[in-house]
Amino acid sequence: MSLLTRNARGVYPIAVTPFADSGAIDYASVDRLLDFYLECGAPGVTLLGVLGEANKLSEEESLELTRHALRRIGGRGDIVVGTNHTGFENFHRFVSKVMEAGASAVMVAPARGLATEEQVCNFFGELVGTIGTGVPLVLQDYPQNTGVYLSVDTMERLVKEFDSIKVIKHEEGSALRKVTRLRAQEQAGRRERVSILVGNSGIHLPQELHRGVDGANTGVAFPEMLVEVCERFSSGKPEEGEDLYDLFLPLIRHEQQPGIGLVIRKEIFRRRGLIDSARVRSPGPRLNGDDHAELGRLLARLDRKLRDSGEQQIISSYPVQALDSVRA
Amino acid sequence: MSLLTRNARGVYPIAVTPFADSGAIDYASVDRLLDFYLECGAPGVTLLGVLGEANKLSEEESLELTRHALRRIGGRGDIVVGTNHTGFENFHRFVSKVMEAGASAVMVAPARGLATEEQVCNFFGELVGTIGTGVPLVLQDYPQNTGVYLSVDTMERLVKEFDSIKVIKHEEGSALRKVTRLRAQEQAGRRERVSILVGNSGIHLPQELHRGVDGANTGVAFPEMLVEVCERFSSGKPEEGEDLYDLFLPLIRHEQQPGIGLVIRKEIFRRRGLIDSARVRSPGPRLNGDDHAELGRLLARLDRKLRDSGEQQIISSYPVQALDSVRA
Amino acid sequence: MSLLTRNARGVYPIAVTPFADSGAIDYASVDRLLDFYLECGAPGVTLLGVLGEANKLSEEESLELTRHALRRIGGRGDIVVGTNHTGFENFHRFVSKVMEAGASAVMVAPARGLATEEQVCNFFGELVGTIGTGVPLVLQDYPQNTGVYLSVDTMERLVKEFDSIKVIKHEEGSALRKVTRLRAQEQAGRRERVSILVGNSGIHLPQELHRGVDGANTGVAFPEMLVEVCERFSSGKPEEGEDLYDLFLPLIRHEQQPGIGLVIRKEIFRRRGLIDSARVRSPGPRLNGDDHAELGRLLARLDRKLRDSGEQQIISSYPVQALDSVRA
Amino acid sequence: MSLLTRNARGVYPIAVTPFADSGAIDYASVDRLLDFYLECGAPGVTLLGVLGEANKLSEEESLELTRHALRRIGGRGDIVVGTNHTGFENFHRFVSKVMEAGASAVMVAPARGLATEEQVCNFFGELVGTIGTGVPLVLQDYPQNTGVYLSVDTMERLVKEFDSIKVIKHEEGSALRKVTRLRAQEQAGRRERVSILVGNSGIHLPQELHRGVDGANTGVAFPEMLVEVCERFSSGKPEEGEDLYDLFLPLIRHEQQPGIGLVIRKEIFRRRGLIDSARVRSPGPRLNGDDHAELGRLLARLDRKLRDSGEQQIISSYPVQALDSVRA
Repeated sequence: MSLLTRNARGVYPIAVTPFADSGAIDYASVDRLLDFYLECGAPGVTLLGVLGEANKLSEEESLELTRHALRRIGGRGDIVVGTNHTGFENFHRFVSKVMEAGASAVMVAPARGLATEEQVCNFFGELVGTIGTGVPLVLQDYPQNTGVYLSVDTMERLVKEFDSIKVIKHEEGSALRKVTRLRAQEQAGRRERVSILVGNSGIHLPQELHRGVDGANTGVAFPEMLVEVCERFSSGKPEEGEDLYDLFLPLIRHEQQPGIGLVIRKEIFRRRGLIDSARVRSPGPRLNGDDHAELGRLLARLDRKLRDSGEQQIISSYPVQALDSVRA
Repeated sequence: MSLLTRNARGVYPIAVTPFADSGAIDYASVDRLLDFYLECGAPGVTLLGVLGEANKLSEEESLELTRHALRRIGGRGDIVVGTNHTGFENFHRFVSKVMEAGASAVMVAPARGLATEEQVCNFFGELVGTIGTGVPLVLQDYPQNTGVYLSVDTMERLVKEFDSIKVIKHEEGSALRKVTRLRAQEQAGRRERVSILVGNSGIHLPQELHRGVDGANTGVAFPEMLVEVCERFSSGKPEEGEDLYDLFLPLIRHEQQPGIGLVIRKEIFRRRGLIDSARVRSPGPRLNGDDHAELGRLLARLDRKLRDSGEQQIISSYPVQALDSVRA
Repeated sequence: MSLLTRNARGVYPIAVTPFADSGAIDYASVDRLLDFYLECGAPGVTLLGVLGEANKLSEEESLELTRHALRRIGGRGDIVVGTNHTGFENFHRFVSKVMEAGASAVMVAPARGLATEEQVCNFFGELVGTIGTGVPLVLQDYPQNTGVYLSVDTMERLVKEFDSIKVIKHEEGSALRKVTRLRAQEQAGRRERVSILVGNSGIHLPQELHRGVDGANTGVAFPEMLVEVCERFSSGKPEEGEDLYDLFLPLIRHEQQPGIGLVIRKEIFRRRGLIDSARVRSPGPRLNGDDHAELGRLLARLDRKLRDSGEQQIISSYPVQALDSVRA
Repeated sequence: MSLLTRNARGVYPIAVTPFADSGAIDYASVDRLLDFYLECGAPGVTLLGVLGEANKLSEEESLELTRHALRRIGGRGDIVVGTNHTGFENFHRFVSKVMEAGASAVMVAPARGLATEEQVCNFFGELVGTIGTGVPLVLQDYPQNTGVYLSVDTMERLVKEFDSIKVIKHEEGSALRKVTRLRAQEQAGRRERVSILVGNSGIHLPQELHRGVDGANTGVAFPEMLVEVCERFSSGKPEEGEDLYDLFLPLIRHEQQPGIGLVIRKEIFRRRGLIDSARVRSPGPRLNGDDHAELGRLLARLDRKLRDSGEQQIISSYPVQALDSVRA
């Protein structure tokens, strides 16, 4: 475990938070899942993102989960922790506790309602002033959710002004050019390098790897595939990387659905034996019989295609049960 | 203290949460403010609304504030508590605690993102199922904030289906007709009476009183005026009520500004000697010199007009210091 | 008639477009209304804003209305024309025609969907490139409608880069400080003076006049009052100006309601004898009996207050019929 | 050419509008494109959707394009025409003209700003009242764009109340269940059958075909693939259909990007020799060198995969030039 730097690379999965059917956090599943992420080759894991249902946990649960994960993961990887900065008093207290406990960074997004780039810069000034410059930040650029769009000029200004911004979690919907322009700033020597990791379900990951991102920071239910794709790209085999990626694209597209996507991912993890229940805390979606059948068909297709293309080893440790013996 | 009913009438102020300059809740100011609200003639007070900066308090602080207020207010009035139901586990725990402590009702709004009326009805079904039918609800109808618009048909359905909805906090921006139509449902015997209290800074209060609302549930910095306006209307003197209201309208309009409105209200309360500091928790607005001078001019104008019209007694217990000796 | 400059001052009413009950433009009412605006002391009039129902007119009707108004108004004042720039081919053709016909300027707002200030600046570059630098622009800063927020830095950049921006129509909801900061740019010699006229129903006009705006560019149904308020401010009698303004504030607040506000304004103009019908083109709001009674009460109150304060002369040329003999 | 019915089936492409580099409509390209759509097996074509840049054409151009297309297509297929109903006078005139000219239906979406289902139903009542019950309607259900969400109950009410609604263009982002529920209404005999065609770039087409849609009504740049996918599904070979679909999914995902997606589609049509220029009217996106290279890589990959899977005949009439000799 160490603090995140601007050289962060690879795949940092955004973890789901497994719940027992009672609604309590299921720590046995948490352990299995964390071990799995590391076995996949992830250098770290992000807890308490949107996918982790952070806003449905109490502060105590969030701290307990973070500490538990840090103990479990030991020196094997980094833990990045999603945060809520609606109020800076709460934010400061929470960040202090998770950093003391050993977290490598916290993830922050510009607050919903920031309307101009001046306001965004002032916001980060006040935020960094509150928690101190020593806390590494993953800057989540997710305007579909926050409504706050950051131009590359503003990002340059933020990265120059705030050394603690180590990673840009790039997930503006269709902003492939943004990656190219951010990298161009570095090539022109206008600012220091910053790590850029792809969010947004990795729906354009191969294109973004071509354009220069350092990896992914997303919750796709097959993180071992993301790791392998990134490795093929970095070892000069981008076509092979994209071939592998494309086999999973139908699932990635299915997972990316707003609302229901979360429970689809949990259900895939459940079918892979990684968590015990796909339960999502209320209010939240449930899968019905049609949804289960549909997912089963997609997983059976994935299984067939992996075998047909000789890529079945990629998920062989935790194969998916297309035919869901438990629920079907 | 008692549970809220569908006959709730009068002015329930939405309280600000006073902070010391350190950022801690200033309980001496809380006490002064609560006493003031009751002296004004309010039958109750709502804590932890948006104006109360609820989303910047920890759960512990929220509970402590609620319990403190319940002790202070004793049997003199009702306490309604704003809630956050992002996650029903957190919501349930919080509601149970405040109701046990003696609250009269909780305020809930339909969750942001509910897109159809079917979803809204299902949401309330699940919500009431979670906390039980015995907890009185103030249904906040504030689409400018939530993005969720409720037709009068949907409101009828909700009021019929869920007995625990006791009050509709009506604050859809310019939906004066909604009041008329909701009352028409009752006159037609289509459903039971429900209390309708005006939010949205009371910017159309006289019109809404003419259309049949039962009072107000808003954070205007002169609640004694709202009480008197409502009383003049109910005692058959609506013109006199509106005359009084119109004297304050320039201030109400000034307070209603998004963003900065909160600190303007706190500053007025401060100048009235009701709270010690206008501090708003970060991230939040501060008044600068121009803003202070502008507010001072408006308050001086109010003072002059009250005297000119012989209405100066209305705020005589806590007159406003137009010339701010502390800050100017 | 002449081209608008950066020294524009006073009240430029945003005109409604009067329709006959058949739906056709009622040119007799147009003439009466235009003459009235000029008699009020307006140096010019803006046609085809949102209030003018521009998006419900065909291009031919828009051109015909503009040409008619230019002929009617002759050398007595300026005509500013609202535009739609969804497609620059259409925009270019329309602007060319209205400028050829003698318009003094066109009004443009940043296109909905512009997400960063870089995009805004590029947009205006392309826009000015399309119609040429010789066409005076009124830059409408109305983020509540467009979703595009302009910081004062971006406005400085736009005003410096594009000489053809002559007027800023300031109507960001509660951005009183923006006026102060824009004027400070001029006092600091950072850029040339630009005219700033208030939109947003003039709901904060006195405060904005104190902060340095040059007048108003809004559709309030009592433009003669706006003119008189501005004159009292510029002649060193701001308190008297604001006293007059406050008499009308209850009506301004009532007119400002989204959706129904348009037909309320038309109905007031109708009751003042300035247009023949309050008809709004479909789809659009209609007033029902309650709405008419409510408006009547507000107008009767205005009438009484004007008399009580000795200000009745202000609207004496076109007094309002509170009791609507036609419809009631 | 005939009027659209509730039995419409198959693929109705949403046409792009080809422009010459001068910005004028390029009718030679229009002809080639229309012929191509019909050769693909489409029973009809939709003009003047968002993809057709309808809002950048003048009314004259829109009418001319529609009449031209009707003449070109003769009796070989249906023409559906997208409409703008901001003002019902304009809408009525335009609809009358295109229906007189021989169009089979017009496409309408609920107006942005409709906030409740009551308002939606009233809107359609007024709309149908304006143009008459004889004009077949394609109801575009595209809430990502309009902000108006329609529950299945509201859709049932609309389909029952308005016989002229013949097709639902289903493009709510991730509403796969909606299809199932709409079909269930029919199976339960609650209302007449209505045609459901998929929009939203067909990003979930195979899943939606499983759930019972009748085809697609979308602008994907490979409509012959959509036709073949639908045919394989309807002839009992859904797996083969989805296999074919998945080969194109990387492109569909790339085309679906907001903003730039339009010019990507035009560029693909250009590379296929179907239109002469990928020009988009201003303001609009242009592809830069990186974008061209990226698209080229994706097209080369598609080409390889089609050959590897023996599906190369599917686009053999108009193969894609991956290496763009013109621009590269």
